[in-house]
Amino acid sequence: MSRVVKRTGKGIGVAPGTLIHVGNKINENVHMTMFEYSEESFQEKTLYQVEEAFALKENPTVKWINVDAIDKVEIIEKIGNEFKLHPLMLEDILNTAQRPKFDDYDDYLYIVLKMLYYNEKSNEITSEQVSFVLVPNYVFSLQEFEGDVFENVRERLRSGKRNIRKTGPDYLVYALIDAIVDSYFAVIEKIADKIDNLEAELIDKPDKDVLKDIHSLKREIIFLRNSIWPLREVINSLIRSDSPLIDENIVLYLRDVYDHTIQIIDTIEIYREILANMQETYISSLSNRTNEIMKILTIFSAIFIPLTFLAGVYGMNFRYLPELEWRIGYGLFWIISIAVAFFMLRYFRKKKWL
Amino acid sequence: MSRVVKRTGKGIGVAPGTLIHVGNKINENVHMTMFEYSEESFQEKTLYQVEEAFALKENPTVKWINVDAIDKVEIIEKIGNEFKLHPLMLEDILNTAQRPKFDDYDDYLYIVLKMLYYNEKSNEITSEQVSFVLVPNYVFSLQEFEGDVFENVRERLRSGKRNIRKTGPDYLVYALIDAIVDSYFAVIEKIADKIDNLEAELIDKPDKDVLKDIHSLKREIIFLRNSIWPLREVINSLIRSDSPLIDENIVLYLRDVYDHTIQIIDTIEIYREILANMQETYISSLSNRTNEIMKILTIFSAIFIPLTFLAGVYGMNFRYLPELEWRIGYGLFWIISIAVAFFMLRYFRKKKWL
Amino acid sequence: MSRVVKRTGKGIGVAPGTLIHVGNKINENVHMTMFEYSEESFQEKTLYQVEEAFALKENPTVKWINVDAIDKVEIIEKIGNEFKLHPLMLEDILNTAQRPKFDDYDDYLYIVLKMLYYNEKSNEITSEQVSFVLVPNYVFSLQEFEGDVFENVRERLRSGKRNIRKTGPDYLVYALIDAIVDSYFAVIEKIADKIDNLEAELIDKPDKDVLKDIHSLKREIIFLRNSIWPLREVINSLIRSDSPLIDENIVLYLRDVYDHTIQIIDTIEIYREILANMQETYISSLSNRTNEIMKILTIFSAIFIPLTFLAGVYGMNFRYLPELEWRIGYGLFWIISIAVAFFMLRYFRKKKWL
Amino acid sequence: MSRVVKRTGKGIGVAPGTLIHVGNKINENVHMTMFEYSEESFQEKTLYQVEEAFALKENPTVKWINVDAIDKVEIIEKIGNEFKLHPLMLEDILNTAQRPKFDDYDDYLYIVLKMLYYNEKSNEITSEQVSFVLVPNYVFSLQEFEGDVFENVRERLRSGKRNIRKTGPDYLVYALIDAIVDSYFAVIEKIADKIDNLEAELIDKPDKDVLKDIHSLKREIIFLRNSIWPLREVINSLIRSDSPLIDENIVLYLRDVYDHTIQIIDTIEIYREILANMQETYISSLSNRTNEIMKILTIFSAIFIPLTFLAGVYGMNFRYLPELEWRIGYGLFWIISIAVAFFMLRYFRKKKWL
Amino acid sequence: MSRVVKRTGKGIGVAPGTLIHVGNKINENVHMTMFEYSEESFQEKTLYQVEEAFALKENPTVKWINVDAIDKVEIIEKIGNEFKLHPLMLEDILNTAQRPKFDDYDDYLYIVLKMLYYNEKSNEITSEQVSFVLVPNYVFSLQEFEGDVFENVRERLRSGKRNIRKTGPDYLVYALIDAIVDSYFAVIEKIADKIDNLEAELIDKPDKDVLKDIHSLKREIIFLRNSIWPLREVINSLIRSDSPLIDENIVLYLRDVYDHTIQIIDTIEIYREILANMQETYISSLSNRTNEIMKILTIFSAIFIPLTFLAGVYGMNFRYLPELEWRIGYGLFWIISIAVAFFMLRYFRKKKWL
Repeated sequence: MSRVVKRTGKGIGVAPGTLIHVGNKINENVHMTMFEYSEESFQEKTLYQVEEAFALKENPTVKWINVDAIDKVEIIEKIGNEFKLHPLMLEDILNTAQRPKFDDYDDYLYIVLKMLYYNEKSNEITSEQVSFVLVPNYVFSLQEFEGDVFENVRERLRSGKRNIRKTGPDYLVYALIDAIVDSYFAVIEKIADKIDNLEAELIDKPDKDVLKDIHSLKREIIFLRNSIWPLREVINSLIRSDSPLIDENIVLYLRDVYDHTIQIIDTIEIYREILANMQETYISSLSNRTNEIMKILTIFSAIFIPLTFLAGVYGMNFRYLPELEWRIGYGLFWIISIAVAFFMLRYFRKKKWL
Repeated sequence: MSRVVKRTGKGIGVAPGTLIHVGNKINENVHMTMFEYSEESFQEKTLYQVEEAFALKENPTVKWINVDAIDKVEIIEKIGNEFKLHPLMLEDILNTAQRPKFDDYDDYLYIVLKMLYYNEKSNEITSEQVSFVLVPNYVFSLQEFEGDVFENVRERLRSGKRNIRKTGPDYLVYALIDAIVDSYFAVIEKIADKIDNLEAELIDKPDKDVLKDIHSLKREIIFLRNSIWPLREVINSLIRSDSPLIDENIVLYLRDVYDHTIQIIDTIEIYREILANMQETYISSLSNRTNEIMKILTIFSAIFIPLTFLAGVYGMNFRYLPELEWRIGYGLFWIISIAVAFFMLRYFRKKKWL
Repeated sequence: MSRVVKRTGKGIGVAPGTLIHVGNKINENVHMTMFEYSEESFQEKTLYQVEEAFALKENPTVKWINVDAIDKVEIIEKIGNEFKLHPLMLEDILNTAQRPKFDDYDDYLYIVLKMLYYNEKSNEITSEQVSFVLVPNYVFSLQEFEGDVFENVRERLRSGKRNIRKTGPDYLVYALIDAIVDSYFAVIEKIADKIDNLEAELIDKPDKDVLKDIHSLKREIIFLRNSIWPLREVINSLIRSDSPLIDENIVLYLRDVYDHTIQIIDTIEIYREILANMQETYISSLSNRTNEIMKILTIFSAIFIPLTFLAGVYGMNFRYLPELEWRIGYGLFWIISIAVAFFMLRYFRKKKWL
Repeated sequence: MSRVVKRTGKGIGVAPGTLIHVGNKINENVHMTMFEYSEESFQEKTLYQVEEAFALKENPTVKWINVDAIDKVEIIEKIGNEFKLHPLMLEDILNTAQRPKFDDYDDYLYIVLKMLYYNEKSNEITSEQVSFVLVPNYVFSLQEFEGDVFENVRERLRSGKRNIRKTGPDYLVYALIDAIVDSYFAVIEKIADKIDNLEAELIDKPDKDVLKDIHSLKREIIFLRNSIWPLREVINSLIRSDSPLIDENIVLYLRDVYDHTIQIIDTIEIYREILANMQETYISSLSNRTNEIMKILTIFSAIFIPLTFLAGVYGMNFRYLPELEWRIGYGLFWIISIAVAFFMLRYFRKKKWL
Repeated sequence: MSRVVKRTGKGIGVAPGTLIHVGNKINENVHMTMFEYSEESFQEKTLYQVEEAFALKENPTVKWINVDAIDKVEIIEKIGNEFKLHPLMLEDILNTAQRPKFDDYDDYLYIVLKMLYYNEKSNEITSEQVSFVLVPNYVFSLQEFEGDVFENVRERLRSGKRNIRKTGPDYLVYALIDAIVDSYFAVIEKIADKIDNLEAELIDKPDKDVLKDIHSLKREIIFLRNSIWPLREVINSLIRSDSPLIDENIVLYLRDVYDHTIQIIDTIEIYREILANMQETYISSLSNRTNEIMKILTIFSAIFIPLTFLAGVYGMNFRYLPELEWRIGYGLFWIISIAVAFFMLRYFRKKKWL
């Protein structure tokens, strides 16, 4: 639950732009890597000081600096000072409860997105915030933890295949966003599998575990929807943006990502409906079973309660109880009993209970 | 379920435009046919090499090439190379989990739609993706499997009736889309029949099978809606498109298809509501039956439980139990029993349980 | 149900504009009437050949031709040929599963609407499609069956009161639409009455019939809403149309019809909500009754089951069962029994079950 | 119910503009009052003939004529003739089932609203239609019955306080609308009180009366919403109107009324949600109680049914039933009985039923 | 409940602009403070007469006057007279049932918002209205009670850190709004905690208290949503406002607040959905338990009722009852009993009840 709501990182009324990391301190060792490339050159190195990257400012190459831990406030501050970034934007980077958004600050662009993983251990979706800052010739990607979905992009840069090195930083940003959106499909597939498994048990064995699973899947879907929904608007703003930092050729690619985003949102909506449908079917299914149980109870009771009464009658000790003396008394008793049971059963069959 | 979500065909972060077929390999033998026609001429032939079609590039005739299997990547690549199609578009053709859409690439148009069949065997709706590429003088239609809903269009081309041969490739595209939209009506009729059958049993015999049917019909409707809904936007974009590839005369025809699409969407919405209504009625109906059953159980219990107690009392073996000695004891017992039963029944009648 | 979905009249992929009547053949004898009028003249006659009407083409009078059966394809074809109407429009006239719509073909206007009647016999709403074609000086109204809601308009034409004869064909179209919209109120009133009757039984006697009625009323409302909802857009398009065939003075009258349409749609929405409310109350009401029944069962059981056990104990035949020998045994038994019953009743009263 | 839907006052197809009063004839004696005022003068008089007001046409004073009964068709006709009002508008005045609306007829404005009262006797909201016609220097307010919410406005006119006499007829219209909107708050407060009272009983004593109250409150809210919702649009059109009859200074006041309207609509929406919430809680609450009742029944049954069986066993008359001869038989019976009861109770406690 | 609806403070039809405080009189001693600051100077003082602030009108410093009690009508009147504020605005300040809104009166701006606190004692959210009036060089903040969320802003003014003193009154208004929006996060966190606690008990122990908590949380959410939702529009109007009183530099900050507002609204919607989900799960959970209980009752009944009947049979006193004489009678009875019980249990196991 706590992942849903997080305060925006500062005490009430604290001056905006005060850089405080909001979130749990996780990794002691910040991990920074830099890819520097152009059509001709390519270099990959680990950075120990972010200033190393600034030194290359005059180079016309594309520089992608990936920072694995955004809780090191000083790195963010250094980048901010170097490129004269707005304090509110720096605050946004540090606040990991950000809503996906795109801000165009004229001289640089800021994009914040959520990476989603399916955590096999806790059986839950985990979310990691990534901020992209696009400064001329530089792309900064700032993540919460180590580990990401960019490995394929790195491979393409290393191999130089499919001309990615010929393109500018805007294409790189596209490629990174594309990788993130692709990773959503994996998460949704996981949920699809779970729903498929539930479906089988839903009508035939509607027990407490099924209910628990429906309940938690619905929460996962609510969480997912909230993370992905704003993406649509983000990518749309990117497409409609007239920033000189984004080349017109890129728009076609962004539109492709946009289509994928719509498809993901559609799919989430479908699962929401399917789960709502399952919940309703679950309740109907339970009512159905209760109904079945009640029928059995009622059939047993309606047959045996009158008979037990009759047996009770002839177990009475009245001195003058003429039937008891009859020779055919006991036989008659059984005849009556069987007749009662027979007519009861017929009655229930007529009512379609049997 | 798995039909709802499919990954967009590539590993996370793989370069866009990498042509990988996403889907199951189905048919070994690609089946390609070409219709070449103009006002004067008509020719129908099976193609073994897609290059055969390119040879006719200079002819002013309309050429419709239908490819029955989109998993042969090399055919798509050849077409792409010949007409300089954008790699992202080729990727879209191969990805069978595409959302219906229309892309205007200036020199050519790309339309992707879903054909829907009612599979009588599995009792389910199956969906097949069709891509249309409209290049000057060429219409490519790329399907997933053999078998389609275009037979009538082919007949009209062969017979040359109703002047279809006098029109250009844009009219052909319209005719193919129209055939697809018409096929949706058949699918909806199938669902309508099923709902009609359910309706009869709903209130009088609300058992588990009814529930199962409602549940699966609701899923079918969710699936249908998702497939057809984007169509509206697709055809609308086509109508509003100012592409030179689409003649103004065609717009009137497209508007007609648009009206049909709206009608289909309306109908799906109605069935959604009707099914929601049926689910509610199902639950109400079950509650009603449980209520009936409870009444019977309670009436039996309320009458016989006190009487059984009374019989139990006079079955006790107390040495001093004066009533047992009375001459009228047994008669009195019956009188009391019948009186109790009578007043109970009157009470229940007053409560309108009988 | 079958009234909700009908195929659009042709085999899949059949050429558009092929005139095939979609619907059941009903009346053998087409009934055609013509009203010809101007400020000075008035004439009403039965037509046997539609060509009789064409002969008056040069007259500046208004000519209203009403055709009672649209399944006579040749009449539609003749009108189409005479006035050069678009084949798609002719197809629409013949297809009785049309959605209400307004098409402006520059030289003529096409409006299709639904007349709704309350069928007292089948206790259902029936729907009849009417198409209006407005050609200069001509109004064609094409219905499915004999019988309509235009009798008042005819009376006004005959009597010449309220200056209707002074106005043009556009006012006539307005008057006919107005008559149709007015007829919706009658249908809604019928539904209102039914809902009123249900309301009375809802809480006090929530039985199966009430459920059936709610269920079918909800379906009626879904059907109604679907028929009337598009009307809003139709009349709005008429108002905003800049066709020379519609005089500006008519707009004020059309706006009045528009207001009525909105009022009808509002009312339908209200009944939808009221019915949803009734369904919920029905379920609550049933739960309430089941609860009541359970209480009675439980009270009886909780009092008599322990007492029956006690009676059973003293009916046992143990040789050594000391209480049986006590003089006060039987009296004591009754005292205990009454005490148990008394405390049980007090307990249930405390729990507010009594 | 019948208050929701009323036919728009004429037979189907009757000529529009035919003046027929739609509603029940209520008051025999029409009551007409006129307030005539300017900055210097003030006069209040009862009118017996509406023509008395027309005589003052040349006076630059503001004249407010309030007519208490709109079923006197001739008064409406006279006003219509005098000021050349459109017949459709006169028809609207007479039709008391009008939807709140604002029509700008250039030379005069027409506004129709609903006054709502809480009828203490029938415990229901009653609705009365008021039409305002704003002609230069004249304001006509036409009500259904005697009695309204304008008493405060009259007082302000009489006392001349707060400069109301210095303002024109447009301010008067504003003041009257404001009085109507204010009166809605009183109605909503009434509903709020009822909901508060229900809340207390909802969870602790969810009986049939609570259900009835929720049901009828929901209907009241549906009715209210329908009456007030269009008001928003009405006042908005007034604000955006560029009619010379409405001074720019008045817009600020109208905006204030608009804010109040939004607040009322918000509040109604909140109560709708609260009532939906209450209905759900009611059902949950009932299920909860049924569950409780079932537990008690089951506990009693599960303990005593096996014991009764055991007592029955030793009440059998088999000749050879060895336990009956045992000295400790009876004691053993009790020990077993108490043990069974004890373990049963422990089992139920473990299941958290106790 | 009463917090939801309050009349807008005046009798029906009372002249607008009549200053009457609507609300409960709370604090006898109005508490007024003034912060006067510029880049160089800073002064904080308590005001006893609001006129003291007016004296500084010519100073170019920013003056923030905070009034803790808006029920002192005369203070509002004095401010109104001094700055020529519109009477309708003054009325709005006094009416504590205002909807959050922003009014641009050209020469001054009026903003009204809700501060929300979580009241630990009553375990409820309380709401306090704050009005901001922005006059050149002056910011008036008018609260209902003492105590607010502005302490941090005051600290920053006192310390002069982060350049707040260098900015104008528009920045101060931003800072105050930001502090209010930040305080909403605290309220939402409180609700998140409560929901987390409920979640644990929901499925395993769905008792009456859980229901009560869900019910009241849903009401809190409805209340919250209503208070916060209009904020979005308010801040958006501020951003789009072209008032000279708001500097362009401030827009970036306001956009930041806007983002926070959207995030809060998103979160509230999520909790609404989660609570709806919980309510559904609660009902399902209850049905599940009732089902379990019924199973136990039915198993007990179905096993013992037939056996009790059998025991009753052999407790009958018929003179001729042959089985009673059999040597193996009693043994046979037990064999039959155990067999019946065994088959019953197997039947129930087959039905998956065990």
